Amino acid sequence: MSEKKPVVTVDLGGTNLRVALVENDKVINRIMHPTPRGAEAIVGLIAKQALEFANKDVIGIAIAAPGTASPKMDRLTKAPNLPELNNYPMAAEITEKTKLHCIVENDANVYAMGETFYGAAKGLETVVVYTLGTGVGGGIILNGKLWRGVNGAAAEIGHISIDENGHLCGCGARGCLETYASATAMARLAKEYGSKATTAREAFELANLGDKAAQQAFVRAGSALGIAIAGMLNTLNPQAVVIGGGGSSAYPLLKEEIEKQLKVRAFPAALENFKLMKCTLGNDAALLGGAALLYESL
Amino acid sequence: MSEKKPVVTVDLGGTNLRVALVENDKVINRIMHPTPRGAEAIVGLIAKQALEFANKDVIGIAIAAPGTASPKMDRLTKAPNLPELNNYPMAAEITEKTKLHCIVENDANVYAMGETFYGAAKGLETVVVYTLGTGVGGGIILNGKLWRGVNGAAAEIGHISIDENGHLCGCGARGCLETYASATAMARLAKEYGSKATTAREAFELANLGDKAAQQAFVRAGSALGIAIAGMLNTLNPQAVVIGGGGSSAYPLLKEEIEKQLKVRAFPAALENFKLMKCTLGNDAALLGGAALLYESL
Repeated sequence: MSEKKPVVTVDLGGTNLRVALVENDKVINRIMHPTPRGAEAIVGLIAKQALEFANKDVIGIAIAAPGTASPKMDRLTKAPNLPELNNYPMAAEITEKTKLHCIVENDANVYAMGETFYGAAKGLETVVVYTLGTGVGGGIILNGKLWRGVNGAAAEIGHISIDENGHLCGCGARGCLETYASATAMARLAKEYGSKATTAREAFELANLGDKAAQQAFVRAGSALGIAIAGMLNTLNPQAVVIGGGGSSAYPLLKEEIEKQLKVRAFPAALENFKLMKCTLGNDAALLGGAALLYESL
Repeated sequence: MSEKKPVVTVDLGGTNLRVALVENDKVINRIMHPTPRGAEAIVGLIAKQALEFANKDVIGIAIAAPGTASPKMDRLTKAPNLPELNNYPMAAEITEKTKLHCIVENDANVYAMGETFYGAAKGLETVVVYTLGTGVGGGIILNGKLWRGVNGAAAEIGHISIDENGHLCGCGARGCLETYASATAMARLAKEYGSKATTAREAFELANLGDKAAQQAFVRAGSALGIAIAGMLNTLNPQAVVIGGGGSSAYPLLKEEIEKQLKVRAFPAALENFKLMKCTLGNDAALLGGAALLYESL
């Protein structure tokens, strides 16, 4: 069964690069390096580390990277945080160095594969995952397959309008979900409501200590998430939504507001047997998701 | 090739029931009856008319009906406009009377199949169709297949929030796209802006004669549509969007505003090669779409 064969997976971030050996649905070896600068250095380090981890059974390398991946999953076509990788033929270079099949995919998509196949939504097939981090991203799995869109640009689900005249979003539009539900936005909202918190983590701690302004920030983040998720449920009617990313530690403060909005806005037929869940894999989601994506791609 | 075999298709509305014989991708026979009251009368009339139209090559009957269809497409599970059909085993009853395979699907989904396979988006495979009518509905085709959602409840794309505190929508939520872009909403907006128009058609005619208030109504409907479509493009990244339904006659007044919003809100990667189009099949979309759906289901 190729589904249990070992895989090398990579979580490539702007700051750190993590490499893992995944076998039998588990991370059995892992290492972290600072991300080097320059496409060749990045590709060289991934290849070197992959060869170090790979045993004779390894069937390929899956890289989760920040940006839009090509439809063939052989490179990033947009990589604002690692511009040196823009259109650089990553997969081909790594295959040349390692003789291993290699794929590259958007990190939030890979994360969503991890939470769907090995995490919170294990056993389900049609799942939408929201990642709350510096921004809001996500991944869409339909009938057990990652939905990438025709240009590999699907699942930018943080860029759904909540208030067309709202706060300016990094994407250039106003009032996107991201301007309410990213960690950055949670901190900003807490400050706007009068809290002394300067980070999402502080806001979370203060909210738990009874700080009304900080609590209000999470109520607003939760209601915005609920509005966005309701619209998505009416559009895609999935089995489950998983809330992931660092901001999901605020899940206990977000859940009630999300559910309030779903009750009012999502169609009853879309709510039947629907599950709202918190992620379970933490930092391993992208490392495990890479394995799921590689099995799917073979 | 089963794809060219004749099919009986039905467009079942609250007022009228239309039956057609579709052969070689064309409607070659058609008839309209007032919709009778009561499940047995409806089913009886469909069966009788199907037998009248059917020749020996007919491979099945496809019914487009207002409501949510079951995952098996054998009945409506929610039919607010024809409550007598709620959970009534339509397909089995019609098969018993006609000995023909029968499927039932949400009318907007069937319409979307028609415009995708035979209409505006012919030749494309990943398309989202918006129907602007009394309400706003639609259908989602992914890789040439209708996306029905896990409960058959997908593509209620009129129920995406534009303004969480907006006008009360028929669904019970506030500020859904439907409260801006349905024919009903276009008429309401025209009145709110000070036009004398009392229907969407009148508003359209007055707008074309230079009535600023009526024009403003279509600008608002178009911008709301643009906001909703941008969010959907960022989510699904399809090849095309088709604007259909009776309200699409206002397409020339809506197009510019839709495109303005897409430019600001949709990700560049989602706009690459993307096409915005007006429907081309008129009332035949659901009749032809039934054939496409039946071919897919066999």
